Amino acid sequence: MTLVSEISEFELISRLEKVLKSSGTVTDAQIKLGIGDDAAVLTPQSKNQVISSDALVENVHFIYDQISMYNLGWKALASNYSDIAAMGCEPLAVSITLGVKKNQKIEDLENIYEGFGAITSKYGGSIIGGDIVKSKEFFISISVIGQNNQTSTLMRSNAVPGDLIIVSGEIGSSAAGLKLISDFDISLYENESEKSSKFLPFLTSHFKPEPQIELGGKILDCGITTCTDVSDGLLRDLSNICDSSKVSAIVNVDKIPTDTNLKSIFPNEWIQLCLSGGEDYQLLFTGNHNNIKQLQENATSQITIIGEITKISDTQISLVDNSNNKIKFDHKGWDHFKES
Amino acid sequence: MTLVSEISEFELISRLEKVLKSSGTVTDAQIKLGIGDDAAVLTPQSKNQVISSDALVENVHFIYDQISMYNLGWKALASNYSDIAAMGCEPLAVSITLGVKKNQKIEDLENIYEGFGAITSKYGGSIIGGDIVKSKEFFISISVIGQNNQTSTLMRSNAVPGDLIIVSGEIGSSAAGLKLISDFDISLYENESEKSSKFLPFLTSHFKPEPQIELGGKILDCGITTCTDVSDGLLRDLSNICDSSKVSAIVNVDKIPTDTNLKSIFPNEWIQLCLSGGEDYQLLFTGNHNNIKQLQENATSQITIIGEITKISDTQISLVDNSNNKIKFDHKGWDHFKES
Repeated sequence: MTLVSEISEFELISRLEKVLKSSGTVTDAQIKLGIGDDAAVLTPQSKNQVISSDALVENVHFIYDQISMYNLGWKALASNYSDIAAMGCEPLAVSITLGVKKNQKIEDLENIYEGFGAITSKYGGSIIGGDIVKSKEFFISISVIGQNNQTSTLMRSNAVPGDLIIVSGEIGSSAAGLKLISDFDISLYENESEKSSKFLPFLTSHFKPEPQIELGGKILDCGITTCTDVSDGLLRDLSNICDSSKVSAIVNVDKIPTDTNLKSIFPNEWIQLCLSGGEDYQLLFTGNHNNIKQLQENATSQITIIGEITKISDTQISLVDNSNNKIKFDHKGWDHFKES
Repeated sequence: MTLVSEISEFELISRLEKVLKSSGTVTDAQIKLGIGDDAAVLTPQSKNQVISSDALVENVHFIYDQISMYNLGWKALASNYSDIAAMGCEPLAVSITLGVKKNQKIEDLENIYEGFGAITSKYGGSIIGGDIVKSKEFFISISVIGQNNQTSTLMRSNAVPGDLIIVSGEIGSSAAGLKLISDFDISLYENESEKSSKFLPFLTSHFKPEPQIELGGKILDCGITTCTDVSDGLLRDLSNICDSSKVSAIVNVDKIPTDTNLKSIFPNEWIQLCLSGGEDYQLLFTGNHNNIKQLQENATSQITIIGEITKISDTQISLVDNSNNKIKFDHKGWDHFKES
């Protein structure tokens, strides 16, 4: 075991680079120079580039001993990759800044980089540099450059009345995972032999989410132009689309796709987990019937129609159930600051 | 006065955007979409792009009450812009992540954004997004995308024996400024009416450094290919060039350009301030006689020859004075971690 305070910045960078090299990430021909100079160098070849930044802070976004370092690395990058997917782009280059504590284990940082290496190997993108600074609380701050060669990217601002509202995958699972680890001892479920098949999908959704890169590209291919990712909660993210597009929406809560066990494990909380739980990193998008039909024929992942965009009105998002009863629900989702 | 905990993330972003809009920054035609979606969108038009990231953490890189918030914003971006200059590029797009404390004043954050706005107005580049998260200690994490349309960028790795070693501006001034504020009450010198004309240049170098964007471009224009910026101390940064280029160097310490008052104010420490003081954000580069002569004819900023690149040898950097006496000096410059 080696502590951050025991080695030089140069040695630390060299050890982390070694982890990345052994993770089998492939560098793109557009990346001319990675880690090691004042800046990395790219020769951009694509029509559109997108840039997304996200940070995770210890004791705000994660508890050090509640997530494996490998998963922490994976998840930190997954949340950025999800933004890239929501723009209909693929990851190209990643810059990672770490704020490290002096008593932090180098081996922990190496495990985080194994997580970074694993997700770049699976979904593309090269880690081209960043910064490492000392900090009293550990943080990871990431910027990702994505790209596509289409005439445009996906946006939040293109929804029009009549559009169907669709989500990919299942919603509420990550928040359910978070709820499980708040109520139980997580070590029980990370232990392969004692895992519960009922709980594991929620924990996996929470700790090791999959960014929907491929689906984002297909959405754009089918002529759909409005998309965001479910990161702050379904209602909050749909509200962002409504704000940007100046429209309202109606959602049937019974149509929201969930894990088969969500409602039985959380009979009272499932609706809240679905509507305001964050970090599902699924895609939420809107489009007309023809484009959605085309996507249904092409997409390999599950997509579900959950509502419709309407003309702008006083109630931004109306909720109904299968019997067309109105559902009252106040809490939109995460606001990162306000304490009320 | 409003505290971070009193407003929503949305309101905070909106207030900071307002500051940027009123600062008169000009957006580039390549920037299709800035703040407000899952990611910003660029349509890249340049041959080379460079990406640099840097972070500043409270109580590690700055003390909250020792620097004005405006200067903190300026300086945070200046250190990134300096890396872009050292690559022979101009800034295009900036992503800024803030880790903010719940009891931090919104007005402080607005002042920081005034600093960001001022430096982008002067040197170009648009703030296209980022992230704002809660943190126990305040931090600023920045990524900058720069660009040029030349066939290449400047690098650390192209120095060859026989190259002259050159620095721009004056060296040691920022470290001298830091030393002054450690020994004196800084508020005395930030007060215009009581400022000391002797001390002010050092304080300005430390608190509001100017990135050498224009010079970086001219260096590249003159056929020079090796450059870095003086951020961690002259010897440390020259050592980076020697490591990358697999060469050694000889430097005449009496040739190092300094503020006229440095040696009289710091008769014993000036050499250490010059050799291992960081954050001057001047450019350090090497080139052959012809290219340097061409640059001397074209550059509007001061450039000074301080030594020569030699074949790789056991002593990476040899120091001499005007009488060709050898100078002994051990401490290369900042290493951000090692505690020995």
